[in-house]
Amino acid sequence: MLVASDNIQITRKKISDALIAKDPAPIQKIVLKCQRNGADIIDINTGPLGKNAEEDMAFFINAVQDVTHLPLMIDTANPDAMAAGLSCCSNKTIINGFSLEPDKMNRILPLAKKYDSDIVGYLLTEKSRVPGDRNERLEIAISLFNAVTHQGLNPSNLIIDPVLVPLIWDNGTFQAMEVIEVVRTLHDLLGFPVRTIIGLSNLTSGHGPLNEKRTMEKTYAGMIAGAGIDIILMNTNHIETMAIAKNGSTLHKKSVFAWGSAS
Amino acid sequence: MLVASDNIQITRKKISDALIAKDPAPIQKIVLKCQRNGADIIDINTGPLGKNAEEDMAFFINAVQDVTHLPLMIDTANPDAMAAGLSCCSNKTIINGFSLEPDKMNRILPLAKKYDSDIVGYLLTEKSRVPGDRNERLEIAISLFNAVTHQGLNPSNLIIDPVLVPLIWDNGTFQAMEVIEVVRTLHDLLGFPVRTIIGLSNLTSGHGPLNEKRTMEKTYAGMIAGAGIDIILMNTNHIETMAIAKNGSTLHKKSVFAWGSAS
Repeated sequence: MLVASDNIQITRKKISDALIAKDPAPIQKIVLKCQRNGADIIDINTGPLGKNAEEDMAFFINAVQDVTHLPLMIDTANPDAMAAGLSCCSNKTIINGFSLEPDKMNRILPLAKKYDSDIVGYLLTEKSRVPGDRNERLEIAISLFNAVTHQGLNPSNLIIDPVLVPLIWDNGTFQAMEVIEVVRTLHDLLGFPVRTIIGLSNLTSGHGPLNEKRTMEKTYAGMIAGAGIDIILMNTNHIETMAIAKNGSTLHKKSVFAWGSAS
Repeated sequence: MLVASDNIQITRKKISDALIAKDPAPIQKIVLKCQRNGADIIDINTGPLGKNAEEDMAFFINAVQDVTHLPLMIDTANPDAMAAGLSCCSNKTIINGFSLEPDKMNRILPLAKKYDSDIVGYLLTEKSRVPGDRNERLEIAISLFNAVTHQGLNPSNLIIDPVLVPLIWDNGTFQAMEVIEVVRTLHDLLGFPVRTIIGLSNLTSGHGPLNEKRTMEKTYAGMIAGAGIDIILMNTNHIETMAIAKNGSTLHKKSVFAWGSAS
């Protein structure tokens, strides 16, 4: 199991300021900290970006790949920005991501083939609605799998995100448990060990006491690690949650254990 | 999911001193703290006890049931002490426990029928060896299930303990993951929602740094909660691990969630 940091987000003032000033230093400082904290992948969430989308994306990618060789997860819904990012990235890439939504299917998915990239597929409906239950999610997983193979990609390039929703949604706890079942079931359904990812912070988004949110994230990190998740996208500054994720990874490796080597 | 406290253990000096002095106060103080911390069940681990086993067990049971109405898990390998405990206990009881070992099968299991008690069945071989893998565990589960029904008990009285071993055993991480799979598989195998229990502290027993042990216990509590465990036997003074266990319970209920009501 791997951890992808979600710390590079354009919604953070430090990041948007760095973009405006075209100053890579604040971004690089954050990336190096993510790496020290144990990130295996760096997600770069630029949002859709504006009229200089391609140039802005290149700034982000170059800022990050100048200080790390970790795989970069390029996180934008803008196909032009995505293409720009992929074209200037020399690290391994993961496109984050596509779904059944026609625009994503037609303009994002082909980039995975063109740039030989892994790609996250969201279990969302064509209208970007969250599925009601595990069965609807599994049907969508089959459609994404078919789309990926139809595109000429290797199925191993696909990383499925079953889409965690906030617990405070009316059916939030039900959905959290459905996601666990989906992660457990996907290998059998698709007939190969398809990789899976969840965005942990989605679970606790909205108003709520910070300490309870952190404890819930730790709980769910353990639960989803037990279910066999491959990547947890999370804030790598949450050191205790990181330790739980790393422990989950250690247990899954089933190798000889020694205290002090757990992370 | 429920939490059983493992805080009443005769190996703790405070507890053995209380027994010698026949002073219930120190025991009751611990029990009340367990209850405040969220214990749903109180395990009373008396060990085999000595020549006054029956009287000593009655002391323990009465000390505890005088201050709580929680179910009591009576934890001794001595059949006479077990019978004494069951006969004087007015709280709901859980016998902890029996296995394929002939002495347990012949002398402990019948007490569950006689005293209309739930009973923990350990997935251990007839020689009390830990099974090598999940398949061996599942075979033993079927044997325990058959023994319980042959005894005239309702299968719902059985609580299966798949037996967690220390991570520092040669195959400790493998076994920890096998236990997760067993917990996940037992319902389908036995054809009804058989309850399951694990003793969390087994995982981290032996030498090792305390903070890493606690983090590993938190990790595994989440993992096994996600797999659907029914009871975690643990030190209820470990407040953060308790919070994770309670969160796991909250998520499994799949009811409407609100921060502040998680535990």
